[in-house]
Amino acid sequence: MFESAEIGHKLPKSRFKREEPRFRKRLLDLQMRLLEKSKFPVIIVVNGVDGAGKGETVNLFNEWMDPRHIRTHAFGGLTDIERDRPEMWRFWQALPPKGHIGILFGSWYTDPILERVAGKDHRARFERRLERIRHFERMLVSEGALLIKLWFHLSKKAQKKRLKELASHKETAWRVTKEDWKHFESYDKFVDVSEDALRATSTGEAAWDIIEGSDHEYRSLTAARILEDALSARLKGERPVLSPPAPPPAPPIDGRTLLASFDYKRKLERDTYEKKLDKLQAKLAMLTRGRKMRERSLVLVFEGMDAAGKGSTIRRITPAMDARFYRLIPIAAPTDEERAQPYLWRFWRHVPGHGRAVIFDRSWYGRVLVERVEGFASEFDWMRAYGEINEFEEQLVESGAIVAKFWLSITSGEQLRRFKARKETPYKRFKITAEDWRNRKKWPDYARAVNDMVERTSTDPAPWDIIASDDKHFARIETLERLCERIEAAL
Amino acid sequence: MFESAEIGHKLPKSRFKREEPRFRKRLLDLQMRLLEKSKFPVIIVVNGVDGAGKGETVNLFNEWMDPRHIRTHAFGGLTDIERDRPEMWRFWQALPPKGHIGILFGSWYTDPILERVAGKDHRARFERRLERIRHFERMLVSEGALLIKLWFHLSKKAQKKRLKELASHKETAWRVTKEDWKHFESYDKFVDVSEDALRATSTGEAAWDIIEGSDHEYRSLTAARILEDALSARLKGERPVLSPPAPPPAPPIDGRTLLASFDYKRKLERDTYEKKLDKLQAKLAMLTRGRKMRERSLVLVFEGMDAAGKGSTIRRITPAMDARFYRLIPIAAPTDEERAQPYLWRFWRHVPGHGRAVIFDRSWYGRVLVERVEGFASEFDWMRAYGEINEFEEQLVESGAIVAKFWLSITSGEQLRRFKARKETPYKRFKITAEDWRNRKKWPDYARAVNDMVERTSTDPAPWDIIASDDKHFARIETLERLCERIEAAL
Repeated sequence: MFESAEIGHKLPKSRFKREEPRFRKRLLDLQMRLLEKSKFPVIIVVNGVDGAGKGETVNLFNEWMDPRHIRTHAFGGLTDIERDRPEMWRFWQALPPKGHIGILFGSWYTDPILERVAGKDHRARFERRLERIRHFERMLVSEGALLIKLWFHLSKKAQKKRLKELASHKETAWRVTKEDWKHFESYDKFVDVSEDALRATSTGEAAWDIIEGSDHEYRSLTAARILEDALSARLKGERPVLSPPAPPPAPPIDGRTLLASFDYKRKLERDTYEKKLDKLQAKLAMLTRGRKMRERSLVLVFEGMDAAGKGSTIRRITPAMDARFYRLIPIAAPTDEERAQPYLWRFWRHVPGHGRAVIFDRSWYGRVLVERVEGFASEFDWMRAYGEINEFEEQLVESGAIVAKFWLSITSGEQLRRFKARKETPYKRFKITAEDWRNRKKWPDYARAVNDMVERTSTDPAPWDIIASDDKHFARIETLERLCERIEAAL
Repeated sequence: MFESAEIGHKLPKSRFKREEPRFRKRLLDLQMRLLEKSKFPVIIVVNGVDGAGKGETVNLFNEWMDPRHIRTHAFGGLTDIERDRPEMWRFWQALPPKGHIGILFGSWYTDPILERVAGKDHRARFERRLERIRHFERMLVSEGALLIKLWFHLSKKAQKKRLKELASHKETAWRVTKEDWKHFESYDKFVDVSEDALRATSTGEAAWDIIEGSDHEYRSLTAARILEDALSARLKGERPVLSPPAPPPAPPIDGRTLLASFDYKRKLERDTYEKKLDKLQAKLAMLTRGRKMRERSLVLVFEGMDAAGKGSTIRRITPAMDARFYRLIPIAAPTDEERAQPYLWRFWRHVPGHGRAVIFDRSWYGRVLVERVEGFASEFDWMRAYGEINEFEEQLVESGAIVAKFWLSITSGEQLRRFKARKETPYKRFKITAEDWRNRKKWPDYARAVNDMVERTSTDPAPWDIIASDDKHFARIETLERLCERIEAAL
């Protein structure tokens, strides 16, 4: 794979001098058009062999273009807030907004490769991580990002020469660390593992470009050309063709649905309810304050039709928790910073650290519910959301989160009763709008969307709990019970 | 000061039961109006003696109101990204946006008090910290925030009783830590220091409310009443009267100005310029890559009239730095998340950690320049900005930042030449707009604003460098020289 990047590519200085101004002008121009349109972000992943000129190239990019709209991120060791969140969290935080260029130096490839080289990762885990990267990059491209992946290569001989050269000059000696020499010792293994990684992640939507790094002129102009070509094509509207995800199956022909299969008649009398509520709240209080919780986090998701009782159920849960422990995130319209990022970004930013809980009142499932039904998201977008969501939740669980998701399910008749009751209660009138009535007309569409959602996103690490909610007392107790069970099982 | 909070205040349970629903309804209603208007944030600072019911009260607030619009922050030990930034940084990050309620548990008071109690802080430093808090709170209130400071108190006897009580029940024993008992041992000292702190920070705009914490009913209803009264008054438009800051003095009667006193005739020929540029860039490269830089950060500010050469000067600095080291922040219109926060928030969020640089292309000085001249900020707002900015920069310097500020100064004649030249160069035409010509008409107002700015914000820790910039070569070399000097002096 790297053979053609070990043949000593080089260009004369004169050619570089001649061509550089043209590239500069062209790149700056493309960057300005990117910024003006602000329709998509550019993400440049920079990886490769030590000493192959990664840093120099990034510096050149910053020199050639307007550095005010470039965000260069270098990833070093994990900070303590990164350590107890999913490993992709810090990359999500570093994503450039639409219209900007983000250069990621030491990207999501660095740790998987280095840990495999060091023998810390089994083959299976390594491959799992690469698969996750493929999904992540596919998501970025689906969201419109222009993803450019540059791999800077050096032959073993060239690397040794380069490191020695750097070490021999006073001004550059600081750049060669002990770690670099240690990496050099495992050059063969590194190249071997990298080859596997590149092969597994060179997809149609996010191919690698390999650049031989020994000659400054060749390396720089090659990188410039790759960037120019990619930006120019994308600005012309050329986008990689992505095969569509599998559509949800047609509704079953016998007309039976998951939600209809629940028993909505179950009730709890006030007395029993209050006794049970006290007991369960006390239990939840103990569970969330326990020592074991300090090593875990809690992510709760509440979804349901309008008037299903999300708010009132959440209000039975929060009093059992310490206010310092949880944060409640109501999902409303995104801010403009959120709109400039991929769909899941606004949820990733709230991922809790260990010893903390986040409760989402509506969530990322909006995409496969309201956005699907109302046509706010294209079919391609909501269909891919199932897989992206599963991946997101799986990562949460792997990093120590307990993910509990509740669908508060009411019947259409009960919704009507509640709407009417709200209309008649003065201080609840504000809770019912024309939109609620409009949504209600689409009940069958929503019911189907919920069915598909549960079918596709009720996973082993993050299953759905469907709570028959026609009786509020029953629903609250049921939710608290399931929640306590999930936490107990996980701790 | 605490005497009246040691007299055993208490209320019968029956009264609590009777009054609680009224407070609940009222607080929820006020909260909804706050959210609807979204004109100001509510910041509730919760401090006091251990075991005095701080946590219980915060939990009650979250229960009584809609927790979706309350952000509760508990501050524990410093994370590593907090450690190499100013101590106020984490509180800035925790400020609630307009329309929301932020509850700060363990606020900016905690460390100053505990460190003074532990004998780590001299009296003078303690007082300096309290002064800074006064300025910070005054800023918050000036920005429109409703600031409520609750101090929960217990007599020594009551605290001992409370701790013993908690420790004796299985369900609550976990809440009493060794640290709590250690704190109890220094009760007298703690109360003594706290009294000093409260007295020094009970200002007209941000007074303390002291609540005796031994009785749940008394404590809760008192806190509820304070919150209700404050919110209701503020929503009616009642605001604390803030004495205006001192206005800048009238211009000197001889008409001489600071900016006019520079020699704008100095020039550098291309040859000398290029030689010097190479040398200075190499020097800057070494300085910013040196070992000492890892313990410091760099904050550069570039300001100047339109066409003064900010962009082109910055482009002579960035190539000397590693792209991983610096971040360039162009200041344009704020995002909606930024608009929902105090003025300086959008700059605080970019404060670099150690070993990193941030370059601001325009900055927080916009408030005393364009916003003053164009009337976008009220006189009260831009006049207080001088002090707030000085405080901000002082904190940066204390936390290890090297702050260098450049005013690129051109004469009115030179600006005119450059505007005309831009108009005539096709690829530069986009750089000159009708607004630039409008601004130009206000030259004398801007000149006065610059004078006042330099006079009021050129401080010992963060002085201004004024660079005569009619000759671009001279200006770039001068800037690089001053920058290198500042870094060298600091390291």
